[in-house]
Amino acid sequence: MMAPAATALGLHLRVLVENATSSAAQVVVDAPVGAASDEAAITRLVDGADALTFEHEHVPNALLDRLEGAGVAVHPDAAALVHAQDKIVMRTRLTALGIPVPAWAVLPSAAELTTFLADHEGVAVVKTSRGGYDGKGVRVVRGADDVADWFAAAAAGTGTPLLAEEKVPFTRELAVLVARRPSGEMRTWPVVESVQRDGVCAEVVAPAPDLHEATRAEAVEVATRIADGLGVTGVLAVELFEVADAAGGAPRVLVNELAMRPHNSGHWTIDGAVTSQFEQHLRAVLDLPLGETSARSRWTVMANVLGSTLADPTEALADVARLDPAAKVHLYGKEVRAGRKLGHVNVSGDDLDDVRGRAVAAAALLQGDASA
Amino acid sequence: MMAPAATALGLHLRVLVENATSSAAQVVVDAPVGAASDEAAITRLVDGADALTFEHEHVPNALLDRLEGAGVAVHPDAAALVHAQDKIVMRTRLTALGIPVPAWAVLPSAAELTTFLADHEGVAVVKTSRGGYDGKGVRVVRGADDVADWFAAAAAGTGTPLLAEEKVPFTRELAVLVARRPSGEMRTWPVVESVQRDGVCAEVVAPAPDLHEATRAEAVEVATRIADGLGVTGVLAVELFEVADAAGGAPRVLVNELAMRPHNSGHWTIDGAVTSQFEQHLRAVLDLPLGETSARSRWTVMANVLGSTLADPTEALADVARLDPAAKVHLYGKEVRAGRKLGHVNVSGDDLDDVRGRAVAAAALLQGDASA
Repeated sequence: MMAPAATALGLHLRVLVENATSSAAQVVVDAPVGAASDEAAITRLVDGADALTFEHEHVPNALLDRLEGAGVAVHPDAAALVHAQDKIVMRTRLTALGIPVPAWAVLPSAAELTTFLADHEGVAVVKTSRGGYDGKGVRVVRGADDVADWFAAAAAGTGTPLLAEEKVPFTRELAVLVARRPSGEMRTWPVVESVQRDGVCAEVVAPAPDLHEATRAEAVEVATRIADGLGVTGVLAVELFEVADAAGGAPRVLVNELAMRPHNSGHWTIDGAVTSQFEQHLRAVLDLPLGETSARSRWTVMANVLGSTLADPTEALADVARLDPAAKVHLYGKEVRAGRKLGHVNVSGDDLDDVRGRAVAAAALLQGDASA
Repeated sequence: MMAPAATALGLHLRVLVENATSSAAQVVVDAPVGAASDEAAITRLVDGADALTFEHEHVPNALLDRLEGAGVAVHPDAAALVHAQDKIVMRTRLTALGIPVPAWAVLPSAAELTTFLADHEGVAVVKTSRGGYDGKGVRVVRGADDVADWFAAAAAGTGTPLLAEEKVPFTRELAVLVARRPSGEMRTWPVVESVQRDGVCAEVVAPAPDLHEATRAEAVEVATRIADGLGVTGVLAVELFEVADAAGGAPRVLVNELAMRPHNSGHWTIDGAVTSQFEQHLRAVLDLPLGETSARSRWTVMANVLGSTLADPTEALADVARLDPAAKVHLYGKEVRAGRKLGHVNVSGDDLDDVRGRAVAAAALLQGDASA
């Protein structure tokens, strides 16, 4: 999804792809094949490039350190990226910065989990510090036995360290997208609500409906403090829990997760904002002045296409077009697998219920639900 | 510019490029090299394709006829496309359909031009019937000597037949973009004003300011009658002269030129309309239901980047971004040549003077005019 923005700006995009049939290789001409952990492949990738950036965080940090040492402009740099790679590093740093986060603890052994459970009404969210995404590497537990396998793997050195977090009694999930460029300029998009199903983002509503102004301001302040405090360059997505204020004031926010790249919570910006997160990411990593981030419509709702009973979601294009001439369909050219993010639909307009219903209905058709 | 729309819809785009470094080859993975007149290249191009379409009209009509005979879905088909290839065929057909056109005459020899000049106050616009674009193949003449070379070429069989048209005393130029799909559905975008300089489009203002409702309705009616009457499939651009009404009523329109493809007068739709002309063209040639064509802002102005004193217009990206965080830059990856269309800038907003000034200023920077 970075490719159209690069093309429009006259920038040459070279992307490392896992194999010649992967999504990006279908739409980027200069697409060498290699693993993100392959030092030789990365070295060839950056030859002649003005900047190296990422669409996921699974890149060896030591390799990035060496590239930076060799003068490659890595954005975000290894020192920032580690906070999106390792949840213990992230929680430690955010706590030190005074950012509101859920109560948490490192779990060197099951004993620390037992203590944490005792302090938190017998329930906790245990996470692997590395490698999790879309609900993977996350378990709600009520006893150490629930994650005995993870403790064993960590002890054997085949798993990653673990941490526990309180199970936050949130009212909903919010997300703030912020872009920051090396010279320090930052811009945030409107705060959104993200609706999760089975640990996976199903819908994003922009802006978040009925958001208290103080909560909105706190969310933006938290995101910009993180971007600045961690020295992030490029787009940073800050996923937040909205929680009721015990004193009866405006709802508060707690930081759930960070992603240092264009993120699912910002796909609405492709059609719904003056500058998309993909164009902004390119501007940021090249240290170009950032683009205007205001919304182009009162409401934009993004609905993910999660799996499909069709052999190919394009089979439903005519039905979607007939149903909704204004739905903006974005398919990723990925092979269909159960629950896989195959694309998304953006719908914009003045009436939230209408906009949301239409986005969900269009995504349902692409998922093969003919009753939509 | 068709590529991002194809990608979003999950469509595979294969494009025939003149050489491996051409604009389209930089951004389309499946881009075989060959001439548009090369039958073998075109035959390979259409292998397995659902539809064949065009980004220019210079494709041999007989070849398209043969492809249609072989069952290839050619859109627009040869019978329609000839009206965008041959101005005498176009003028003859529009006249037969009762479409308002300037007074015109075929010029088998200089004698007919002399007669035409005598009937039109001594001035005429002479055009070659084929091969003209952006002011080429068009001359304002006051005597047969002014086009003696063209008559000689036509007589020798090295040029194309000629026609004369009255020099229309127009108040401004308008354009209507209409999409039509094989099943007959049509949609038009708001009527725009196009501002020409030296025979080349410099700016497009969407919608055309202060357009009389009756003139707007006539423009739309003319465009849809042409699309329907000629059986156009895909996007049709109808360039119009707006002329004062002799009886003092609403201004009238006369058809100037036709283009059967996404057109410069519709580049504003990329950022300014719910469905861009590129997405719509793909939907139309695949006979998918057409997309909503309403404007996303009160005003959108497109300014062309015509040549540049910079080695590469991307050198001005930082200046443009600093000047105007909301300007949408579209560069084409073409080598700089004097006057060449290297890209365009779209700016949207509520205040026309502001929007227009900003689009022109951003384009000027990309042209290397640092005083902008």
